[in-house]
Amino acid sequence: MTTIQPEKISLNLFKFVVVIPIFRGNSMTEYDVLIVGAGIIGLSTGYHIKRRDPKLNVLILDKLGAAGQGSTAKSVAAFRCLFYSRTNFALADSSAEFYKHVQNDLGFDLKLRWAGYLWFFDKDGYGKMRPVLEDLARRGFQYKEFDEDEIAKKLDICTDFADDEEAKLMSLGDIYRGILIPKAGLLDVDSLVKFYESEFLKLGGKIQYNTAVTRVIVEPRIALGMPGEPYFWQEADVVGVETNSGSLRAKKTIIATGAWASQLLDPIGIECFIKAKKRQVFSIKANTEALKNLLFTKEFTNAGCLPFTILPKPSAYIRPAPEENALWLSYADDFPRAFKIEDDPQPEENYYRYGLYQVVSKYFPQFAGCQPFSAFAGLYEMNTIDGQPLVFEENDLIVAGGASGSGILKADSVGRIAASLYNGEEYTMLYGDRKFKVSDLGIKNRSIEPERLVI
Amino acid sequence: MTTIQPEKISLNLFKFVVVIPIFRGNSMTEYDVLIVGAGIIGLSTGYHIKRRDPKLNVLILDKLGAAGQGSTAKSVAAFRCLFYSRTNFALADSSAEFYKHVQNDLGFDLKLRWAGYLWFFDKDGYGKMRPVLEDLARRGFQYKEFDEDEIAKKLDICTDFADDEEAKLMSLGDIYRGILIPKAGLLDVDSLVKFYESEFLKLGGKIQYNTAVTRVIVEPRIALGMPGEPYFWQEADVVGVETNSGSLRAKKTIIATGAWASQLLDPIGIECFIKAKKRQVFSIKANTEALKNLLFTKEFTNAGCLPFTILPKPSAYIRPAPEENALWLSYADDFPRAFKIEDDPQPEENYYRYGLYQVVSKYFPQFAGCQPFSAFAGLYEMNTIDGQPLVFEENDLIVAGGASGSGILKADSVGRIAASLYNGEEYTMLYGDRKFKVSDLGIKNRSIEPERLVI
Repeated sequence: MTTIQPEKISLNLFKFVVVIPIFRGNSMTEYDVLIVGAGIIGLSTGYHIKRRDPKLNVLILDKLGAAGQGSTAKSVAAFRCLFYSRTNFALADSSAEFYKHVQNDLGFDLKLRWAGYLWFFDKDGYGKMRPVLEDLARRGFQYKEFDEDEIAKKLDICTDFADDEEAKLMSLGDIYRGILIPKAGLLDVDSLVKFYESEFLKLGGKIQYNTAVTRVIVEPRIALGMPGEPYFWQEADVVGVETNSGSLRAKKTIIATGAWASQLLDPIGIECFIKAKKRQVFSIKANTEALKNLLFTKEFTNAGCLPFTILPKPSAYIRPAPEENALWLSYADDFPRAFKIEDDPQPEENYYRYGLYQVVSKYFPQFAGCQPFSAFAGLYEMNTIDGQPLVFEENDLIVAGGASGSGILKADSVGRIAASLYNGEEYTMLYGDRKFKVSDLGIKNRSIEPERLVI
Repeated sequence: MTTIQPEKISLNLFKFVVVIPIFRGNSMTEYDVLIVGAGIIGLSTGYHIKRRDPKLNVLILDKLGAAGQGSTAKSVAAFRCLFYSRTNFALADSSAEFYKHVQNDLGFDLKLRWAGYLWFFDKDGYGKMRPVLEDLARRGFQYKEFDEDEIAKKLDICTDFADDEEAKLMSLGDIYRGILIPKAGLLDVDSLVKFYESEFLKLGGKIQYNTAVTRVIVEPRIALGMPGEPYFWQEADVVGVETNSGSLRAKKTIIATGAWASQLLDPIGIECFIKAKKRQVFSIKANTEALKNLLFTKEFTNAGCLPFTILPKPSAYIRPAPEENALWLSYADDFPRAFKIEDDPQPEENYYRYGLYQVVSKYFPQFAGCQPFSAFAGLYEMNTIDGQPLVFEENDLIVAGGASGSGILKADSVGRIAASLYNGEEYTMLYGDRKFKVSDLGIKNRSIEPERLVI
């Protein structure tokens, strides 16, 4: 028990002050909207808010020196439009359609490449996936199925580990079926960032780089001008942020800081359910005939390269990077990978050596002896409730994020939904005139159809 | 991009080792169960596991020097059995019935005092609560209702701030109705801790104090004896903990560390949805006639003291502490109170001076000029999903906690449910032969009826 010194306490709140309630907004210039984070979600949100009302005074802040340099830059920049969950499908498909529109109609090259997703399943996994796929087929979705022999022949890979004791010890799944999702592919994330950034600026939006937000400022609605406000009996709201170069006020503050969100939200007691998980990507140069043949295979699509390819078990994946003559290897590991916020996450040599290399080279002998020429690591902003994006408002603060590794492939939709929430609308129109209920991505009335087609 | 030095990478996993899979459990003595945290939840869990099977080798660890010295010691130790949610009712009522049994039948004095809860509502709050109360009455619950005049007269307090400009500026709610919940009251938390601790020890359980757990140990099911295991392609589980005095192995590890849970779970990527929020209690000596009359009022129950009393708006509360001739004041503040883990949370002088004192003394003129003679602060282990307890298992690790300030009043039930989860049972029997589905408190199949009677 702490003993409080009685002499230090004066008990009459109103004794020392002539109470002149100070109503907000008279003091200094305020922005209409402050967006913290110039990653893909912050940029898309800023763009759609300005697009809807160009008169608004919108400022995006980022701690780094340019747009999209945080986790956005570490994305593998793949997208797919086949999802079981109607929520996921709406968010992803309309974002992809918008990116197509940007490239085809607006003439802004996003380097979209419809390389498809090629998904391998072992017998057990395929058995579980079959009813899901049949459902999707009934709903009119297109995909193609390949059996193990076709796959082995088309890619010159190993699909069966019956005689491989090592593979058995590693519990690798045999490839029993492959599912090709044609409406899926790759894009260039820098170009997508540039699109949103330049359009936002064209509409009169402002961006301030190298500005680290240190805290969110909360003030009482009716300030009494006394020390330590707000007291708990005062209604209070977010009125802006403190940065390394001074305070900034705004009518609405939007947190789009991805994996770092809880660093700003925990101190004001707002739960965003976002935790950071490191993801690592290792890039292999296609400098042998076998790897070149693999990377530039024409067996599956007209895109001129291998589809984004997912192994059966564990579901490590290969992301073709034809522009740089490389194949990227990665895996989204779960338990016991830590939830941990890091400012500069690093790839781990052993993660490739004992992890990705061992798994991938068992299926793809083309990788035998391959070493990465480069590697990078980023943070997924995991929404630990359901892995889907979150867009919600509390006390004049909006949070947009939690896409859990799907930020690029859902960014346009999430930005539109955040803009609608800002505008106080019940529904938003996603690209392609698809109506989406804003509160479905919120916390209180969250309504998300669970995904059954998970990598 | 990080460039990896090719010469540092050796690519053949199995080249350097003769792989002799090492199956677990051959190396050193293991406990059947390790419980981290000797707070009320850890103790209750340990007791019920041992009670169910005294042969089990169960060890409880705590970083502090005795049982129940963390947040448990900072509880206001009040309980109630009236809840709208059937989940809450089951957990709380059967715990209270068990505590009554401990005191009346087992002769272990818990200093139970059926002082009741006295809940004040303003007109608006009462309007919202009325259908809930009517529902509860139909379900057979007992409570009494008092109007503002009865309350003013019985307690000699102010119920109406029509002429008080300060109170209006503070947005204080007038008292319109009071609801007395008779099946509720106070207990002595040290005695409850002693009960569980001594019974656990009597059954042969062991407790090791001054032992800080630094991390949870994860190992592969089939170890290859190579550096950096488990790799992501290995199935892995929790096999014990590392402490400041060495490693301890167990078949099952139970985390009951309350507000500190995420410190052990985040590093292995298990989400428990528990965040810490500071709660402060200020103790006022009843050293005036007016305060004595208030503290020892007989107007509401036969317990010889004021009920646990909750103000209308904000819902600050008064917890009578007749044994120490004191009244404790507290409030569970939400936004913008931080989520923050602190090892030694401190009460804040201004929280009393500008907060509790101002609010409570407006209603209760008996407190005019009163200063606390002592104060303490603890951490609520807030379950940010729904505020209800969590009991779930992942990879041989059980988490029990998240009672969000209701740890004492639900501890017995939570301990039984955790013991049933340990035993692999679908249902547990709460005290009084009430069947409760274990997975209802889990994460995957969580099923909790929301509470509508919230302080």
